Amino acid sequence: MEFFKILKKYKNARVGEINTTHGRILTPVFMPVGTQATVKIMTPLDLEEMGYEVILANTYHLYLRPGVDIIKKFNGLHKFMGWNKNILTDSGGFQVFSLQALRKITKEGVIFKSHIDGSEHLFTPEKVIEIQNILNGDIIMCLDECPPYPATHEYVNDSLDKTIEWAKRSKLAHKKENQHLFGIIQGGIYKDLRERAMEEMFKLDFPGYALGGVSVGEDKELIYRVVEWCGPMMPENKPRYLMGVGTPEDIWYAVERGIDMFDCVFPTRIARNGNIYTAEGQIAVRNSEFKEDDRPMDENCNCYACKNFSRAYIRHLFNVHEILGMRLTTLHNLHFMIRLIEIIRKSIIDETFEKEKEKFFKKYRI
Amino acid sequence: MEFFKILKKYKNARVGEINTTHGRILTPVFMPVGTQATVKIMTPLDLEEMGYEVILANTYHLYLRPGVDIIKKFNGLHKFMGWNKNILTDSGGFQVFSLQALRKITKEGVIFKSHIDGSEHLFTPEKVIEIQNILNGDIIMCLDECPPYPATHEYVNDSLDKTIEWAKRSKLAHKKENQHLFGIIQGGIYKDLRERAMEEMFKLDFPGYALGGVSVGEDKELIYRVVEWCGPMMPENKPRYLMGVGTPEDIWYAVERGIDMFDCVFPTRIARNGNIYTAEGQIAVRNSEFKEDDRPMDENCNCYACKNFSRAYIRHLFNVHEILGMRLTTLHNLHFMIRLIEIIRKSIIDETFEKEKEKFFKKYRI
Repeated sequence: MEFFKILKKYKNARVGEINTTHGRILTPVFMPVGTQATVKIMTPLDLEEMGYEVILANTYHLYLRPGVDIIKKFNGLHKFMGWNKNILTDSGGFQVFSLQALRKITKEGVIFKSHIDGSEHLFTPEKVIEIQNILNGDIIMCLDECPPYPATHEYVNDSLDKTIEWAKRSKLAHKKENQHLFGIIQGGIYKDLRERAMEEMFKLDFPGYALGGVSVGEDKELIYRVVEWCGPMMPENKPRYLMGVGTPEDIWYAVERGIDMFDCVFPTRIARNGNIYTAEGQIAVRNSEFKEDDRPMDENCNCYACKNFSRAYIRHLFNVHEILGMRLTTLHNLHFMIRLIEIIRKSIIDETFEKEKEKFFKKYRI
Repeated sequence: MEFFKILKKYKNARVGEINTTHGRILTPVFMPVGTQATVKIMTPLDLEEMGYEVILANTYHLYLRPGVDIIKKFNGLHKFMGWNKNILTDSGGFQVFSLQALRKITKEGVIFKSHIDGSEHLFTPEKVIEIQNILNGDIIMCLDECPPYPATHEYVNDSLDKTIEWAKRSKLAHKKENQHLFGIIQGGIYKDLRERAMEEMFKLDFPGYALGGVSVGEDKELIYRVVEWCGPMMPENKPRYLMGVGTPEDIWYAVERGIDMFDCVFPTRIARNGNIYTAEGQIAVRNSEFKEDDRPMDENCNCYACKNFSRAYIRHLFNVHEILGMRLTTLHNLHFMIRLIEIIRKSIIDETFEKEKEKFFKKYRI
């Protein structure tokens, strides 16, 4: 079976299908983040019932705890965490470069300190492939250097040299056919470097490509510019993955420019702080203004939380620090995200993308 | 329909059925504790799927937060918390007397300070009935004085006078037919006082009776002595409720002596600390000895957590402070408790109580 197939194109936007040994992934897709082999507070059954077909897990965190030896005993993450659908593992690069545990970057790889016990570790492209081979995710990523933001053209240029070299070594090191290794396009905010990154990476003929280094910092413009430059230029017949991005507005923007895959901690993280998505935009359901509000979190939502509980009840749960509150808001936000993706997919198939987008933002206030 | 009906008696043990406007409760029954209108981390659906027919909620906590005005807007707790089966509310007495927020006990009632903001409040028997009428639980309790332990005969004797007087006033104050008001037998560790309490309380003809003041302190002997004295003496045709008790060993002991109802925070509280019930006894699943253990928490259990996850995974979740760990252990322990109750019920019906009890404790180590 083909790894990736486009089912429908509408302008630059596409509906597609990824197939792996753990089943199908319809694209565009939003991947919930399961950093430590759990999408926080959710069970695999919750995710499956919502319709999720793929989640992301973080190599850096799992390498440190529980460690690869334990996951090896379970023949990989799927069995360890009880999730039988697709898993994408990242390379750990983003964490190593952003958690400031960094010690030294060399041509060979990167030496970093564990954020847990301060112990020193070396990630090389080969080592990261080896770890991901053990985790056994269905889609895996090349180790890349994720440059800081902002950074000079010279710094990003040198960094990109390393990322390209590491991608070549990653490809050589990876042998397992059931795991699909993606290349990552870096290059910071420099158009010429993003273009060079694409040129070099596309030569390596990975089965899919990601745009990296866009979710650093607070600057949305960075995301939008990189997507604008690269989205439509990436190989047509391969999945295009925008790493670490996914608010509703970012997803609409990027799908329109040809992006297929998203992951983001935002929907689950804000949920745990009592912030929820509704058709009218984000609201802080734990605010006291909702203390007598008998409406569901989102009147347009048919998730278990919205069908059974009021804002007043959810607000009460947050107010008295009851975990059920976070559980219900997480469930709702993940339900909101998958429903959003379904609306977007349908609008591509029906060729009503612009109309649906307009309809969405007529109510939804950013 | 009769409020309580005995379906089967075997020696002092009974299988019965309580009926209210929110459905049936088979007894013996274990009631999970939903202090703040939530059984911690569980949804109402989780509880229903396990087979729970009644939960307990705490009047003291709900009176303080969210407050009765908000619950009144929802016509009671059922709608507020999305639970359509039975609810038992306590009188708040236990919390007021045990949280050391106590200010003053008079004949009129008890003045206490909120543990949240230090504000002063008065609970009288009438006020507590009024609050419980608003909460609208199916079974409600009279305000009682829960004497400290240990306490002198004289103190407990005076305290009992108040509890009896308050029970009379509670009965007069309660008018709602859909809510069944239980009397509470106090009397500390003094057999003559427990006997006097029973004599006076039974005259008041409540539809059910509870044994109170047994779960204070650490002394199991207190529970066992009071159950031994009172269990078989309580009215045959009314439910008998042992308040605040329910480890597996306590339940076997008390059912054998005629007790029908139990509530206890223990199974859910220990779960949140990573301690679980198994057929072999309690184990601390978060211990490092389980870090590679691919067996389920309890090999004899068919709950969702045991069917899908290993001890190694649950241990990992606790180790990295992931809430899903507590969610799965809570689910398991509640599943264990209801299964235990089912075994006990069946053993009464089959007249194999002693044999089943022996079989249970052959494996289960306290």
